[in-house]
Amino acid sequence: MTIATPSFATLLTEAVQKTRSVTCVGLDPRKANLPEPMRQAIAQDRPEEWAAAYTQFCCGIIDVVAGKVPCVKPQAAFFEQLGPAGMISLGEVVRYARSKQLLVILDGKRNDIGSTATAYADAYLGADSPWQSDSLTVSPYLGQDSIEPFVDVCDQRSAGIFVLVKTSNPGGGLLQNRETDGQSVFQRVAELLTELNKPRLDSHGYGPLGAVVGATYPEELAQMRQAMPHSVILIPGFGAQGGAADDVKVGFHAGGLGAVVNSSRHIIFAYQRPEYAEKFAGNAWQRAVEAATDDMNQQLNFCE
Amino acid sequence: MTIATPSFATLLTEAVQKTRSVTCVGLDPRKANLPEPMRQAIAQDRPEEWAAAYTQFCCGIIDVVAGKVPCVKPQAAFFEQLGPAGMISLGEVVRYARSKQLLVILDGKRNDIGSTATAYADAYLGADSPWQSDSLTVSPYLGQDSIEPFVDVCDQRSAGIFVLVKTSNPGGGLLQNRETDGQSVFQRVAELLTELNKPRLDSHGYGPLGAVVGATYPEELAQMRQAMPHSVILIPGFGAQGGAADDVKVGFHAGGLGAVVNSSRHIIFAYQRPEYAEKFAGNAWQRAVEAATDDMNQQLNFCE
Repeated sequence: MTIATPSFATLLTEAVQKTRSVTCVGLDPRKANLPEPMRQAIAQDRPEEWAAAYTQFCCGIIDVVAGKVPCVKPQAAFFEQLGPAGMISLGEVVRYARSKQLLVILDGKRNDIGSTATAYADAYLGADSPWQSDSLTVSPYLGQDSIEPFVDVCDQRSAGIFVLVKTSNPGGGLLQNRETDGQSVFQRVAELLTELNKPRLDSHGYGPLGAVVGATYPEELAQMRQAMPHSVILIPGFGAQGGAADDVKVGFHAGGLGAVVNSSRHIIFAYQRPEYAEKFAGNAWQRAVEAATDDMNQQLNFCE
Repeated sequence: MTIATPSFATLLTEAVQKTRSVTCVGLDPRKANLPEPMRQAIAQDRPEEWAAAYTQFCCGIIDVVAGKVPCVKPQAAFFEQLGPAGMISLGEVVRYARSKQLLVILDGKRNDIGSTATAYADAYLGADSPWQSDSLTVSPYLGQDSIEPFVDVCDQRSAGIFVLVKTSNPGGGLLQNRETDGQSVFQRVAELLTELNKPRLDSHGYGPLGAVVGATYPEELAQMRQAMPHSVILIPGFGAQGGAADDVKVGFHAGGLGAVVNSSRHIIFAYQRPEYAEKFAGNAWQRAVEAATDDMNQQLNFCE
């Protein structure tokens, strides 16, 4: 097996070390939450206009957070909601983020079987794709043979995936927590990721198969940190969903390695939060993004 | 709870009765398998040209199968593989199929939590979407609260979803077959679908939550038919993946109701199958599609 170097995991570790930040900024544009001036600039309620506003908004965030954080996570669903115009915007946002040296984790939660999974891997991680990202979130319900086509692409180029393990929503446990002989479904997924990572480790001990484990279940996060020593963990649910700094710290290895913590609404729509709204009224939404990013970096200063 | 009528399940039942067919034609365009004249017409290897070829190919299939089958199933991944141009093509194919009175099951296997799931529902089932389909395939790993936003859209308009229950691939069992107190993960998903369907039944006894159960596991298919009396079952894995007519019959209620059987490659690329290649050489790929559809309808004549 030949593996492309530097791997995605290596690039992410280096970006964390360089920025001294473990923050991932979630790019979840929503019509209703765009800053007032952008909403008012929409002359006609057409997808193309909203898509242009999404691009402007997300690139405005990227301008502020580049250099401050290692990565951003565009949420595909909100772009897809606008139809093809939104998908063009998604490509623009991905390319702009990468041009600013931000690693892109595309949150698409895709998967399918066999050659169809290969098509998804190609669409979101492939070198020729307009959406070419550094990594993609992937759903595990279809099993190992649905994950392997993504791993093949990771081997070919410096790409990674984040497989859903234990999600942050209240209902995630319905299937994920079911135990068989003392092992839950999410523990089984974790075991699979560790197996697949083992022959693919970089010099820091990480492989291309990352994991999504929510901040809202700190005990399980600590347990998963142990169970998946080779996976970078993407931790959603911090901030708006209720997770706190102490809750997420257990997901990390020493020196702030091995995980990134996502925050979407709390950063990108910070101008709507009472603590920032007063300071940054009017057109200063980007300054609110900046302040919220700095505050989150300070709360999660695990790199010291 | 107000539920839009006629429901998707009712429309599908009526379409099955009208066409006397339980065949779902999977629209999985792939560059390498397009009929020779279409591949040769590609002047420059650009996504826009391939997307135009995908539209032409899929609409050519729709022309042939309209009136012969109740529904088609475009596979989103292959369109996404072409980038935004592919997504425009997907919209054209969906609209064309619906204009020909074919119900569209969009195979996207989407899902996410809360408002993000709503964005996906809006993107693929919403009235204003260029991809507005009659139903969408959905992954259940994130639990009940990730499925409910889709059900809300189904209540609002005549839409449906097909939730992955037991998939047709060899590795599907890794998580799906794990048992807790004698109940497997896929049985738990089935139970959930039945619960959510119960307050939403149409006059035939079907609700908006369909299920995906592969033809490659006939025993489980029979079991799932019993466990989900109110779900229409989408059965993939027939033909190219190895399922036979006897294998899928157990997925049906009397009179050919309660299920549709998908075939993709065996129908759309029938011109490459030895049994049709001889008869329909050269430009006659559409006649091969027609013959393969007629043959599948005859094999699955459960409507008599």
